[in-house]
This record gives sequence, structure tokens and C-alpha cells, in this order.
Amino acid sequence: MMGSMRNNPLSLLNINSKVAILSHVSPDGDSLGSLIALGLAIKKLCDEVCIFRNDIFPGKYKFLPEYQQVEEYKEDQPQIFDFCFILDCGDAKRLGYSEVILNKSKKIINIDHHVSNTEFGDINLLDTNASSTCEMVYNLLKDFQLPLDKDIATCLYTGIATDTGNFVYDNTTAYTHQVVADLMGFHIDLHKISYHLYQNKPLSSVKLLAHVLNHMEICFDGKVAIITVEDELLKSFNISSNDVDGVINYARDIEGIEIAILLKENTNKEVKVGFRAKKDVDVSLLAGKFGGGGHKKASGAAIEGTIEEVRKKLEEQITIDLGW
Amino acid sequence: MMGSMRNNPLSLLNINSKVAILSHVSPDGDSLGSLIALGLAIKKLCDEVCIFRNDIFPGKYKFLPEYQQVEEYKEDQPQIFDFCFILDCGDAKRLGYSEVILNKSKKIINIDHHVSNTEFGDINLLDTNASSTCEMVYNLLKDFQLPLDKDIATCLYTGIATDTGNFVYDNTTAYTHQVVADLMGFHIDLHKISYHLYQNKPLSSVKLLAHVLNHMEICFDGKVAIITVEDELLKSFNISSNDVDGVINYARDIEGIEIAILLKENTNKEVKVGFRAKKDVDVSLLAGKFGGGGHKKASGAAIEGTIEEVRKKLEEQITIDLGW
Repeated sequence: MMGSMRNNPLSLLNINSKVAILSHVSPDGDSLGSLIALGLAIKKLCDEVCIFRNDIFPGKYKFLPEYQQVEEYKEDQPQIFDFCFILDCGDAKRLGYSEVILNKSKKIINIDHHVSNTEFGDINLLDTNASSTCEMVYNLLKDFQLPLDKDIATCLYTGIATDTGNFVYDNTTAYTHQVVADLMGFHIDLHKISYHLYQNKPLSSVKLLAHVLNHMEICFDGKVAIITVEDELLKSFNISSNDVDGVINYARDIEGIEIAILLKENTNKEVKVGFRAKKDVDVSLLAGKFGGGGHKKASGAAIEGTIEEVRKKLEEQITIDLGW
Repeated sequence: MMGSMRNNPLSLLNINSKVAILSHVSPDGDSLGSLIALGLAIKKLCDEVCIFRNDIFPGKYKFLPEYQQVEEYKEDQPQIFDFCFILDCGDAKRLGYSEVILNKSKKIINIDHHVSNTEFGDINLLDTNASSTCEMVYNLLKDFQLPLDKDIATCLYTGIATDTGNFVYDNTTAYTHQVVADLMGFHIDLHKISYHLYQNKPLSSVKLLAHVLNHMEICFDGKVAIITVEDELLKSFNISSNDVDGVINYARDIEGIEIAILLKENTNKEVKVGFRAKKDVDVSLLAGKFGGGGHKKASGAAIEGTIEEVRKKLEEQITIDLGW
């Protein structure tokens, strides 16, 4: 699964290297896990390491060790970086306002497992067979014989667990479980991690889940489920837009559903769309038609128009692409 | 984690041994997985092997390989068995009507991971550190150098995955992941297993979930969630009483909730009550007060009265026991 890497980017670093590490907006377990894990690891090698965020740090992930070391990037920061590691980010545009760091970096190292990666780095380390970017970071550290510790293991575990739907999705391999067995050997607190990931849901988000499942629409002969979340709804449940993303999985998991779609009102002129597929449909193609991307079974796009207009466009595209 | 076993019960068998294999009523993934896995393995060693069920085989698990080989036990069956393997069964009473097989068996081999096991066998192979009975069966087969195959691996994986809440519960260890890595090496169809276990929910059950979460009551300063399911409700959603049990986990997983309670109208005079705890509360004690039992974090009881009466009794008991 992993031979010795001829070009392990960690071998480029020395104690004086100035390093930036960043990941995508709308952070998830894999982006945050890989960000902090690699950050903590590189801090063992270099004196000047900045771990940047370009979005709000989600409260749900504030159990991650050393998460306070993740700094907010400010556009007027003057630093020039020798190396910039970009994690779990298929496209430089997903860096949000931290994209400007690319111009302030001498060497950009792009580490990702998304099929749709645009190879925007000077070095592109892409492994679409890896379950997660955290699994790739694990490989890098192991290959470099950089000793892991409980904090790094906790971050890597979190990314692998969340990106595999807790070892359910097709990206889970025998090797993934081997990696996790090794990580658990560092005495990570599985109970604490599971509590924060799965057993600490705000009541309001559970009530919102109930609401959207009640109002979910099933179309295309029971093959497509559509969940619509207007700004007003989020306000009335007092929930942030990012915190609603998980509801799409409940729609996907219904008998007969092949595609689940989540439509989130973003601005008056744009709708954020999440796609999930269950079996044969490749929703990265569908997202791609609208300028988005992602994985075969999980993808997303931002589409111009009102919710109703976007919905119509999607239904038309599904009919064209799949003959439904 | 597992040395060579001095007394592997498989070493007692020869080609002429008559073997019965059974497990508990209200079967789950671990009981069915271990039942079929050990059954298929012993069929490689002995000519006369009966794999018995003592309950309806749940439709959800009919993806398990060779599940048709699981026979219904009929009380008037005349066989005498040289060996009877009992799997995942803490108490002989949980064998239901198949308990009579014990009297027809020369040697009873009790293989289980429950703390509460009553050691009713002639040989008792108990490992409370094992994630599941399937993990124990894996150890037995490996120790006996009995080659696994895809079918056996599929059954063992299913039991381990379901009994660990998909690798989330505290019983999950580094060794559990090592075992799963090995099982996945037999090219089990993870997608098919996950689909049947998690992605094939009837729409009606998802709609019922939405309904009960909408109507769930939170009391005791946000520490207790109560879900009430009347007979009428099940009828209107066309769902069987057993299929509603999972909703209690959604209540437990809410921030601040320490105890989740599911009240199911059973008959006019009785309410079936399910309890889930998150952290420190031991709900087996609470269930015990009403003649029920179970684990610290999951228990149940059948309590006389109407839903309103039972609810009052429970609230009073919680106040007495916990001072809430």
C-alpha cells in the first residue's frame, strides 16, 4: 500500500524553513485532523510553522488536541513562506481568502485524496486510493520515521473516521483498519472522540433534522431525495449553515434512494448544493456539470439562482445524464 | 491479545462428531454472524452440523452468506449431539425454546463476551475484553489454523461491526481493527454489507423518526429525553414495534442528555421501556428497579400501567435514585 517514498516532501524541510499549513473552507474532520496532525509533526522539525484556518473553527471539533494552535489567517500578514502545505483541498479556490498565501510561498505542496484535484501545487502528492488525507499524512510521517504521539494519532484517527463514515464507505480498506489499529496503540481516547463526534448534538440540530426529514421530497420514482434548507429555516432553528450538512446522509440511507441532494440557500443569487450517491451513480460528474467537484459518492457545487431555479436545473440535468 | 489456546474446543471434534450450534433469541448481527461463521467453519471438520435458530431470521440480515443453512429448531427433533456450541448468550434462558437442546447434548461449549455470563456450559470460553463473540470465533479459527474464506469473513465482520456500533463503542480495541483488516483481506463486500446494515431504511421508519424527534420531551433540566410510541402511531406509519427501537439512540446523542427513555405501548396494561445512558448513569440499575435488566449503558424493562402512569413512576424513581 505504501512503499518508501522517493520524494517525501518532509525531507525538504530544515529547522529554519518557514512553513504554512492550510486546508479548505467549510472544514471537516479530515481537513482539521490532517491540518493539526501535520502541523504538530512539522513543528518537531521546523521553528517557524503557521497552521492557518480560513473559516470558523467548528465547535464540534474543539476536542482536537492543540486546536488553539490553529491561527486565523489575516490577509495583511507579511510573511513569506518557504513551503506551503495544502491539505485535503481539490482546488485552490477552496482555500477561500487564504488562497493569497500561495503567492507568498516559494514551494506549494498539495496533499490530497480527491479524484478531482487540479494539481495546483509545485509538488502534488495525490492518492485517490487513500481513505482520507489523514491516511496520507500518516503514510508521510511513517515513511519519514517521524514518531507519532497521542495528539497526532487523535487528529489522524478523527480524519479517517469521519471521512470513511466511520469505516463504512467504499474508501475504507484493509490498510485503513491497519492504520487505525496502529493509531489506537497510542492510547487515543476513543470514548471522548466518539462523544464529541456523535453523541453531543445540539438539540436544535436534532429538531432541524426532524423538520427537514418531515419536509424532504422524494422524486424520480423514489430514486432521488431532495432536502431544502432556506436561510429563514436556519435562523428559526438558530443553526449555522455548516452544521446542517449531515442531514443529507439520512436522505441517502433511505431504501431505494440513489441520489440525495441538499439545497442550502447561500445568498440571494447562489445555492450551495450537496450530493450523495449510494451505489452506481457518480455524483462528482453531476457536480462537475455545475462547476463543482468531489468524490463519486459525495460531491458539491455552488450554483447560481434561487432554490427553485437550481432545483429545476438539477432535475433537468439528472434527466439528461441518467435518463430518469 | 491471543496466544495459542491450550484448550481450543475445535480440537475435540472429529469427522463423525454430531454438532449443534445455537445462539440467543432476538438475534442481532453478532449472534447471527458468529452462528453462521462458526457453523460454516465446523462444517469443514464434521459431517453432521446443525445451525439452529430459535426466532425469526431478521430480513435485514438476509444478506449474510449461507443464511439459508440456519434451520428452525423443532422441539420434537430426536437428535442427540456430541457437542453443542452456544454463542453470544449470557444466560441459557436466552436460548428460548432451543434451551432443550442442552439436555440432548453431551458437551456444552459456551462462547461469549458478556460480563453477565452465567457459565452454564461444560466448557466456558468467556472473554469480556473481546469486542464481540465474532472476534472470539475469529480467534478460535485462527488458533486452530482453520482457513477463513470470504463467507466466514463476511459473517465475522458483520458481528464485529454491529456489536461495536461500527467501531465507536468502548469495546473497540486496536486488536479489533487488526482483526477487521485481516477479514477485509478476504475481499468481503463492504459496500453490500454497509448497504444492508445502514443504507436501506424504509422511508416510513425515517418519517417515524422525524415524528418522534419532533414530539420528544426533554425534562430534568435537559438531562432526560423521553420518546413515546403509541400503538396507533406504529399503525399509522405501518411499522412493527421492534423496528422502532433504534430511535432511542438519537435521543441519547443529544448534547446534555444523560438518559434517553423510549416508552412503547405494549398492551393496555404494560409499557415496554428502553433505557440508554451516555456517561456516568447506570441504567441497568434503573431497569432493575422495575424487574428489567441489561447493560450499564443500554437496558430495558416491561412495566405495568398506561404510558402516562409508567412515565410518572420512572420520573419518581429517577428523582429518588439520582436526586434530579
